[in-house]
Amino acid sequence: MSLYSIEDVRRLVEAAQQPETPFLILDGAAVRENARRFKAAFPDGQVFFAVKANNDPTVLQIFNEEGLHFDVASWGEIRQLAGYGVSASRMVFSAPTKLPRDIARAYEYGLRRFSFDTRIELEKLARLAPGAQVIGRVAVDNNGSHWPLERKFGIEPGQEVEHMLYARELGLEPYGLTFHVGSQNKDPQAWVRALERLSPIWNELEDRGIQLQVIDAGGGYPTHFHEAVPGVEEIAAAIRSAFERLYGNKAKLWVEPGRGLVGNAGIMAATVINRATRGEREWLYLDVGAFQGLIEGLDFYGFQYPVISERNSEPLAPFVLSGPTCDSADVIHHQAMLPAGITLGDRVYVLTAGAYSNSMERYNGIEFPETVVVGLN
Amino acid sequence: MSLYSIEDVRRLVEAAQQPETPFLILDGAAVRENARRFKAAFPDGQVFFAVKANNDPTVLQIFNEEGLHFDVASWGEIRQLAGYGVSASRMVFSAPTKLPRDIARAYEYGLRRFSFDTRIELEKLARLAPGAQVIGRVAVDNNGSHWPLERKFGIEPGQEVEHMLYARELGLEPYGLTFHVGSQNKDPQAWVRALERLSPIWNELEDRGIQLQVIDAGGGYPTHFHEAVPGVEEIAAAIRSAFERLYGNKAKLWVEPGRGLVGNAGIMAATVINRATRGEREWLYLDVGAFQGLIEGLDFYGFQYPVISERNSEPLAPFVLSGPTCDSADVIHHQAMLPAGITLGDRVYVLTAGAYSNSMERYNGIEFPETVVVGLN
Repeated sequence: MSLYSIEDVRRLVEAAQQPETPFLILDGAAVRENARRFKAAFPDGQVFFAVKANNDPTVLQIFNEEGLHFDVASWGEIRQLAGYGVSASRMVFSAPTKLPRDIARAYEYGLRRFSFDTRIELEKLARLAPGAQVIGRVAVDNNGSHWPLERKFGIEPGQEVEHMLYARELGLEPYGLTFHVGSQNKDPQAWVRALERLSPIWNELEDRGIQLQVIDAGGGYPTHFHEAVPGVEEIAAAIRSAFERLYGNKAKLWVEPGRGLVGNAGIMAATVINRATRGEREWLYLDVGAFQGLIEGLDFYGFQYPVISERNSEPLAPFVLSGPTCDSADVIHHQAMLPAGITLGDRVYVLTAGAYSNSMERYNGIEFPETVVVGLN
Repeated sequence: MSLYSIEDVRRLVEAAQQPETPFLILDGAAVRENARRFKAAFPDGQVFFAVKANNDPTVLQIFNEEGLHFDVASWGEIRQLAGYGVSASRMVFSAPTKLPRDIARAYEYGLRRFSFDTRIELEKLARLAPGAQVIGRVAVDNNGSHWPLERKFGIEPGQEVEHMLYARELGLEPYGLTFHVGSQNKDPQAWVRALERLSPIWNELEDRGIQLQVIDAGGGYPTHFHEAVPGVEEIAAAIRSAFERLYGNKAKLWVEPGRGLVGNAGIMAATVINRATRGEREWLYLDVGAFQGLIEGLDFYGFQYPVISERNSEPLAPFVLSGPTCDSADVIHHQAMLPAGITLGDRVYVLTAGAYSNSMERYNGIEFPETVVVGLN
């Protein structure tokens, strides 16, 4: 799917019937189409939506209706899905590091499939989710991705087999291997290399008497920002071919798309609330910014949202796009091309804003800690 | 005030009576002492607490009891203060760029003092807050600060006088000048340089028949992280001396501390939920991280929180401290020195966590936008 045109956006905005910006529009038809494309691309696989990418109730219901499964990161996410009647058998708790109380609550709800990447996590699982099916997160190269995840996650390379043996020793069921090629990965071969990296681990475990059942190929499916990206069909073809060659019919294939299922379907509707000339640059201030859902626009993340506006008869000029807060970090774009005359009150539409926008209010479904003031007397 | 010792922390934790981490402890006595020190350091000035730094109800009540005024960034913050009976006459709306509807609501509540840094903002104020007293934000150098703010804010240098003349033309009351030396500024001379930078603007405005009333010296007061910082007394002495020399008894002095009033009074109590060896580095995973209040620990901001733990008989070793979410950015410290044997279940206390921690849940008091799913049929 290419980017929405201004005519598409007008139609969606009209349907949203919101008196005031900011608001995040999600195109339910696009969300549903994404789900169907992923299911069709992995006909023998199981598609788990990574709830961390978008936790809107209607979006989750669409995926529920389409028969998707769910990758959860916390008890908060499980509880939300439970409220929609999603059974624990359709969830996998894929966060490699989990809060102990979340493991206990998930287990009590009936969830039995958990990822891990350390011995300590296995010990937590053995204690709080005895007998659970465990999936080892393997560190793979994240080349080709915009936002690598390899630094923080994954079993220390070379220790995968001994971790699985330790899992068995603890009374857990070694169940599968998983990996993540990094967020917004545009190289289908990244998944192929990862599947090849896991294969000797799988085989050695077989030799040691451990028959795993699942290869979970994780997320990382890209969405269109400014350039065309491989579609899920192209990536799935590469994955399925490598999977067939390496694992044949011995394993089940899982995938866990987040951004790939929702990123293209979101539009943040914003309004210009100020404009300034600062040195040689023009700044536009919007009524929404990094701290209200557009965090991926920060320098730190470096995603460049496409932005369009209602004025289309004017020459374009580069603008720094700032959010409304008093933090100088709250800049979501350094060179957005917008009509030169854009000013106070004009609408700006931030496209490709369907992932990691609304869910950042309680990221991973984890609440802010309570504040307790002591020492008052 | 130096950092809390583990004995101090134990006493505060006991008083907090929380069964489970994470929780943010605020030491009410320290908060009150900070307020009194600021008031004493500026006996002829007016101290406005920047609510954006900490919006806990009890903290705001302490400042209210101590007679402080409040610097607000949104209608959300004004509404909260209004709920505690703070009158509009004790507030200044210091965000240079404000949401139009927030200006209207503030004005309706009786608020009359607003900052600005663009012509467009003046036009908004003239329309939505007719006759208001306006304070021009002047861009000053942020040398000496840890987190500069000069890039995003401030009237384009050289245009300050014409902006004030424009304000008068629009029926607004030119009321003062303000600046911000940048967050966590350790150089008292930064304020002195700024006051000197504003002086010719003040004088030229007098020559043009505009008698301003206020110099608002903003925030930027540092708090103790790993090294001693100048106390408010030292910075105030520098400010008052320059103020006297440059403005004499013609102006009122305002200050707007945020971090300086609360930063040292906060302790985030966390628990280790995982530990991993990754290459040559040891990683600890906590049950709270950048997305639940410790955002300033991100590389992006680069504040290095002091951290201590209950184990004190062991040699220290460096750890990467990670939050619980699945984002690889969620790392709050790259080299925290902690006991070498620290592991699952151990408590970790993050000190100097009183500023920009609880208030980041709705930063600047601005809500997340609503999500609207359209195109369902």
